[in-house]
Amino acid sequence: MKLANYKVKGSNEARLGVLTDMGMVDYEKLGLTPDNYPKNMIELIEDFDRVGPLLKIALSQDDLIFIPTNEIKIESPIPYPKRNVFCLGKNYLDHAEEIKSIPGASSQVPTNPIYFTKVAYPTIGNEDEILNFKNITDSLDYEVELAVIIGKKGTNIPPDKAREHIFGYTIGNDISVRNIQMKHTQWFKGKSFDTCCPLGPVITTADEISYPPDLRILSRVNGEIRQDSRTSMLIFDLDYIISDLSNGITLYPGDIILTGTPAGVGFGFDPPKTLKPGDEIECEIEGIGTLVNYIER
Amino acid sequence: MKLANYKVKGSNEARLGVLTDMGMVDYEKLGLTPDNYPKNMIELIEDFDRVGPLLKIALSQDDLIFIPTNEIKIESPIPYPKRNVFCLGKNYLDHAEEIKSIPGASSQVPTNPIYFTKVAYPTIGNEDEILNFKNITDSLDYEVELAVIIGKKGTNIPPDKAREHIFGYTIGNDISVRNIQMKHTQWFKGKSFDTCCPLGPVITTADEISYPPDLRILSRVNGEIRQDSRTSMLIFDLDYIISDLSNGITLYPGDIILTGTPAGVGFGFDPPKTLKPGDEIECEIEGIGTLVNYIER
Repeated sequence: MKLANYKVKGSNEARLGVLTDMGMVDYEKLGLTPDNYPKNMIELIEDFDRVGPLLKIALSQDDLIFIPTNEIKIESPIPYPKRNVFCLGKNYLDHAEEIKSIPGASSQVPTNPIYFTKVAYPTIGNEDEILNFKNITDSLDYEVELAVIIGKKGTNIPPDKAREHIFGYTIGNDISVRNIQMKHTQWFKGKSFDTCCPLGPVITTADEISYPPDLRILSRVNGEIRQDSRTSMLIFDLDYIISDLSNGITLYPGDIILTGTPAGVGFGFDPPKTLKPGDEIECEIEGIGTLVNYIER
Repeated sequence: MKLANYKVKGSNEARLGVLTDMGMVDYEKLGLTPDNYPKNMIELIEDFDRVGPLLKIALSQDDLIFIPTNEIKIESPIPYPKRNVFCLGKNYLDHAEEIKSIPGASSQVPTNPIYFTKVAYPTIGNEDEILNFKNITDSLDYEVELAVIIGKKGTNIPPDKAREHIFGYTIGNDISVRNIQMKHTQWFKGKSFDTCCPLGPVITTADEISYPPDLRILSRVNGEIRQDSRTSMLIFDLDYIISDLSNGITLYPGDIILTGTPAGVGFGFDPPKTLKPGDEIECEIEGIGTLVNYIER
């Protein structure tokens, strides 16, 4: 099931829906809308064990109304996460090697996961604009990442139970302001600029993706392929990440974990291919879709 | 004005109140409780320009009811911040020098602020217990810090306007799991363990503290003074931090910034004086109060 937040074009009302091959199906039109049903994505994730099966039945009805995708604007599936977005650095071997040349970045392939966070408040959605920050940086960069959405609360999750805590997957673009990332030693600030966490377009529920995910992951800038890898190439896989991250830190439904980016980021090229006003960035992962964003002109 | 969340002993209901020399005054008993008044601390902060003056008038009445402090338990003033707690590393000169010996910590005094975050969901309050994590670490450490509470939304705040964005101050104890902090290169995970963000006991509103704050700041472990400095000794002062942090990142009412810790943390001693099950840690800042916490036995 592909869950999304969307607006009908011309309307300002964000609505919950299920994206199908035939178009968007509005959640509230599925007959599940009494007061005791979830009203937003995080509530839906928290209550999905109960509501998910009912949604599936409702979606099999013959009288569904499909809204054509050209009549809607897809919004971020989780615009206001409860906590900062959890992120991993250098979690693809080829990327760990390409960024050796970045001043301040260690040249080593990590022997332990590197965790940091992005503020992402709000995250932005498909077709939204990323501010260009042209007075602050000339090193704005993209990073396509598989984003794991946590479905079940857990602490000290054993690796062989990690899978049970995954609600689904979406695409994150870990937009980075490289000069600021390096200036402050810890990466947080350069990763947390306003509008710098595009997310979406949809959350594909975990039952639709084989585990561990082995999905083509790629990014394009103005149509040129920059990153092209597979999510099976993670140095630390999802079992490891979820178990290790939850060691001492409780994970909650709706938490977002960006699992790292493969080689081909702008700073991996010589000279760097950083983002410019007007650029179009497409982040694509098989089974989820394509997340398109534009740099403010 | 000293704002607090509290519970009457024996009750599970968290309530908003104003702590005075005579005891706690319940917010809802002040006659400001119709539907259009704030119902929790973050709403109060957001609406304080309007409600603050009314609160002051209400507090000058003759018929106030004071609840003796021995009949209450003070809770965290902001148990669920909207975003992770913003933190600064190495922001007192003496502390930057004492931790030169920590493996993985650069020996340099920072030329730019070092920002990272703590998950802090929830933060814990006065007299709450910190888990001992004895299966994970023998290097649990304390860090008393002046916590700035943001009162007014802002982006790219000029240094000379920073003060206007401060709602008030509280005390934070940046409990750190040193072995995990160092293991993952980026500090985030070792700073974000459950229960590792004690906060409080109260928020002292900015009008009660001269600016920039020059307050004695100290910590004690089992009664022994470990840290003893003044908040005027920050390397990067509040004008600088708020301006620099908000450069590209919007700050919101209720945001919490821990401004760094002075010398005397457990890891600054040889051999280290880290925390053990049963330890009592007191963090004290002049004009705010004392935040007491215990390590789980």
